[in-house]
Amino acid sequence: MSQGFIALDWGTSSFRAYLVAPDGAVIETRAHGDGILSVKNGAFEPVFERHVAGWDTQLPVLASGMISSRQGWREVPYVQAPAGLTDLAKGLSQFQTSNGRKLVFVPGVSWHAGDGVPDVMRGEETQIFGALDGGNGLFVMRGTHCKWVAVEAGRIARFATFMTGEMFGALKAHTILGRLMTGEAEDGPGFERGVRTGLAQRQGGAGLLHDLFSVRTLGLFGDLPGDQLAAYLSGLLIGTEIAGATKLFQPGAVGVTVIGGSMLADPYMKALGFAGITGRLGRPDAAVRGLGKIRNQAGLIT
Amino acid sequence: MSQGFIALDWGTSSFRAYLVAPDGAVIETRAHGDGILSVKNGAFEPVFERHVAGWDTQLPVLASGMISSRQGWREVPYVQAPAGLTDLAKGLSQFQTSNGRKLVFVPGVSWHAGDGVPDVMRGEETQIFGALDGGNGLFVMRGTHCKWVAVEAGRIARFATFMTGEMFGALKAHTILGRLMTGEAEDGPGFERGVRTGLAQRQGGAGLLHDLFSVRTLGLFGDLPGDQLAAYLSGLLIGTEIAGATKLFQPGAVGVTVIGGSMLADPYMKALGFAGITGRLGRPDAAVRGLGKIRNQAGLIT
Repeated sequence: MSQGFIALDWGTSSFRAYLVAPDGAVIETRAHGDGILSVKNGAFEPVFERHVAGWDTQLPVLASGMISSRQGWREVPYVQAPAGLTDLAKGLSQFQTSNGRKLVFVPGVSWHAGDGVPDVMRGEETQIFGALDGGNGLFVMRGTHCKWVAVEAGRIARFATFMTGEMFGALKAHTILGRLMTGEAEDGPGFERGVRTGLAQRQGGAGLLHDLFSVRTLGLFGDLPGDQLAAYLSGLLIGTEIAGATKLFQPGAVGVTVIGGSMLADPYMKALGFAGITGRLGRPDAAVRGLGKIRNQAGLIT
Repeated sequence: MSQGFIALDWGTSSFRAYLVAPDGAVIETRAHGDGILSVKNGAFEPVFERHVAGWDTQLPVLASGMISSRQGWREVPYVQAPAGLTDLAKGLSQFQTSNGRKLVFVPGVSWHAGDGVPDVMRGEETQIFGALDGGNGLFVMRGTHCKWVAVEAGRIARFATFMTGEMFGALKAHTILGRLMTGEAEDGPGFERGVRTGLAQRQGGAGLLHDLFSVRTLGLFGDLPGDQLAAYLSGLLIGTEIAGATKLFQPGAVGVTVIGGSMLADPYMKALGFAGITGRLGRPDAAVRGLGKIRNQAGLIT
């Protein structure tokens, strides 16, 4: 007889578990900031058990995200792109936790571009299939590491990672660029000016290592007030990302679906607008929906 | 009657004071890692006095570097490029320390490029004039913030800053890229591969935000051993800088003089070689020599 399952989306900087009914409806969600980087000494199981306290240990757990990386609970090999739902299902890796839960990991996806440099994702492949309606599309996912993903004929065809989110955090907290900043807001004139400066890389320019210094000089010269500098930096990085992704994909032709909560997605939607690219907001439940599709594909209904 | 002076080169991450004889010879050098960012609560004077203990308080002190920035001892306005030695001499700012030393700051130089974004230097202008023989040249200075500087007819004509050094430190210490690193060396195959990946931006590409992720993936896939990853990151950043600077200057035509101690300059010399650009090692005493020239120009010989 069919039963429900626990869907787990455990990434670098966040934990989200969903109690899912047999019909696919989400009964309860447990969300927390305990990303895998904050878990000490490999203590993933106790952190997991604490967050899902009270949920039936008989329910299988289907997990995606960085939890299956080398820094996670157990490393699962990547499936190579092009990769569809059936490839993900074949790459599932199963084990039992010490208190008897059945834990199944979704594999990440790797892609070797023409230059021989590999690229990887973990978790985004699941969101992609959760967000996908039809067989084709171009997706962008904001996060610690942003992913641009081209889906063709129902398979992840190729993709590229941009370290936009992690770069913002490191630059703001650990370089001189944060010194003059007094605000956080990703709106106002600072954000737009930053996006447009980054987008100018489409016409060539000295590149990000040079452009970044403008965060300091525009503040020094009073061209931007301190409360606009964080927004300017964020915009500069997002604009630079869009300029780079434009060289790999054709977002102008097909538009882009932005996946993530609206708080994460809104600045991208704005920046795509400045770039003259059509942005569409993807569904917010992409991760849990993707896990449900993979579960069905794998015939995990017990 | 002529007397000697104290030459002070106090930057973001280092302190160098020189006791200079009336004939310009350096009698004694005091070097330390107490850059201005490590000085707490604006206590520049006690830090300075500690490092120059025993040196005659009657000698004037001529200082260049970030010590005259907003984060320094006293902020001195920038002189605008194009700027020559006479402009720097006119922009000198003088005050007296609490124990009676005469302290004279060399101004930094600002440059407004066509895009309206200002760029600035503090300290490098002094090194440039110390390194300059003749009226023209293209210079690069490695440091927290690297500067590419074009000198024409004896004046700093225009320049661009690249945040290469600070970026390396922040990425290695505060992002996931540092996780797989086990070494520091800037030689070996990792450095060259990084430089060549960065230089490929001259032919276009997805940009640094994307390329950086290869530091992680090449490590994950075992394409580069952990002890080559720091070198690869350093090479990638330097290669990216050279690719960007190539779009602003014509280093292929004129070659580049690399200023800085040989430990700092060697990786640049190598990277310029991979790029097919002629690199020349500049004199190591550029800062103190530049301060001497400015002193003579200003008629500070008392």
